[in-house]
Amino acid sequence: MSILCVGSVALDSIETPFGKHDDILGGSATHFSCAASYFSTVNLVAVVGEDFPQHHLDFLRSRGVDLEGLEVATGSTFRWKGRYGYDLHNPETLDTQLNVFADFNPKVPQSWCEPKILFLANIHPALQRDVLTKVKRPKLVALDTMNFWIEGEPEELRRTIAAVDMVIINEAECRALAKEPSLLQAARTILSWGPKTLVAKQGEYGALLFHGDEVFAAPGLPLEKVLDPTGAGDSFAGGMIGYLDQISDPQYEDFKHAVVMGSVMASFNVEDFSCDRLRNLSAEEITRRYQTFRSLSHFEPVPADFLPKA
Amino acid sequence: MSILCVGSVALDSIETPFGKHDDILGGSATHFSCAASYFSTVNLVAVVGEDFPQHHLDFLRSRGVDLEGLEVATGSTFRWKGRYGYDLHNPETLDTQLNVFADFNPKVPQSWCEPKILFLANIHPALQRDVLTKVKRPKLVALDTMNFWIEGEPEELRRTIAAVDMVIINEAECRALAKEPSLLQAARTILSWGPKTLVAKQGEYGALLFHGDEVFAAPGLPLEKVLDPTGAGDSFAGGMIGYLDQISDPQYEDFKHAVVMGSVMASFNVEDFSCDRLRNLSAEEITRRYQTFRSLSHFEPVPADFLPKA
Repeated sequence: MSILCVGSVALDSIETPFGKHDDILGGSATHFSCAASYFSTVNLVAVVGEDFPQHHLDFLRSRGVDLEGLEVATGSTFRWKGRYGYDLHNPETLDTQLNVFADFNPKVPQSWCEPKILFLANIHPALQRDVLTKVKRPKLVALDTMNFWIEGEPEELRRTIAAVDMVIINEAECRALAKEPSLLQAARTILSWGPKTLVAKQGEYGALLFHGDEVFAAPGLPLEKVLDPTGAGDSFAGGMIGYLDQISDPQYEDFKHAVVMGSVMASFNVEDFSCDRLRNLSAEEITRRYQTFRSLSHFEPVPADFLPKA
Repeated sequence: MSILCVGSVALDSIETPFGKHDDILGGSATHFSCAASYFSTVNLVAVVGEDFPQHHLDFLRSRGVDLEGLEVATGSTFRWKGRYGYDLHNPETLDTQLNVFADFNPKVPQSWCEPKILFLANIHPALQRDVLTKVKRPKLVALDTMNFWIEGEPEELRRTIAAVDMVIINEAECRALAKEPSLLQAARTILSWGPKTLVAKQGEYGALLFHGDEVFAAPGLPLEKVLDPTGAGDSFAGGMIGYLDQISDPQYEDFKHAVVMGSVMASFNVEDFSCDRLRNLSAEEITRRYQTFRSLSHFEPVPADFLPKA
């Protein structure tokens, strides 16, 4: 069991109404790896600069993340600075310094060239496709992307999407990608390009899974405290892919479970800054949170007597 | 089995990207009654003007709605004119003419003074409380309200909320009412004022049921077509209360079913303008839609082998 993940490792400076932290551990591949690490082993392909703190590397290794594919390049680590308002949606980007990430050219170590699952986090869609040429085709390839590529590289992105099995993006990105205001129609359009599965993340409202002709809604859990939503989508993908990596031939019910487990990990991620809430979760905490999700959305069939009569 | 409903009957002029219709049947009590009529009998207390078309009365009677409490007053019927953009949220109000609704003083016919369930649709909170003094206390009293009263009559509204069993409002109204950005905290605050049950409607995302210490999330169904969201919240309440009226001593599981049935009726309501989709649904259509909601959110327990190990 192991997952190949290609994406960004960054140093974030985040301000929310609940705190302000500079140069904390961030990046799509980081949040993904932390969440997935509770279910499987992640082989991480990313790049950092010479300034990247050793203790972050130590932490990722402590989570069982294999860093053989983490390149340390000359220069500074990718930095993002953002500020959230009280609604904790749509952060204002205060500064972006791509630094070594600007020239990121994913190198997959020889021993990782036959992954079982490949997760392509949000990077240039041409780079995502390039990674696919460097490995033996895994049983499952999933990708995330963002509005920047949907608007800036629509053709490249569409070619990449056609080459993967699963797309995990925000609902607004679904609509923008398909140029279709109805989420249902947007999902059908994207699936018609090739993928078998699409997950539309809906933030605090949960996520919709489109799998062939099936639709499943995972609920969002109303939380006691949300300190920092950064990385929620990546930890969602990590929980989901980590869960799926345990199953040799996942079926629809397994994908449903995976979406719930993604929601579980994302719900932890937002409870603290950076990946701090995912540093040291116990199996019991995760199981209890999963059970909370189950009772949140489970209902027995409505008694036939109470359904309308003809 | 019968429900006493007090609220507005109106003539709406609605523009959405999918059509434009003038002086169509609207009003909170109308949408509520149409939805509830598939489960129970509604005794309607409202006011219209002399200009109110006979065919709308005929339609409501055809749905089994008892109009003995519908006053026809000198003057014109309440009119609302609104326009929705492509997101179909937050309509722009183009015109409001309260007309006879401005002096609405709900009169409950003598034979309706012992209702089993009372639904107080969105009217002035003092009027809502006044209705409570005119009837023998039913087993269940529910109310809806709106931002206009939350902002303009907070003390009146809070007194009324303290006197009811169930509050059915939008999630944004929950937050505004409790002055609390966290929906979970807002729900707890409102429940602390007296009601046993709070439903936070979330539009296309479904609804959250807070019942004592329990929380249940009903999913939103991604729809093929949404033509006009007007009255979605009222038809939600109608499906919910109509369902509950069938059950003598509803427990938590029944409230969950009721929220799902509210979602079912709201999902029909938005598929056409006015109450047109609710004119003539078959029992089969409602049952099939309910089953779609069930399969949308149902998942089997995750196998213990795939949960994280200690």
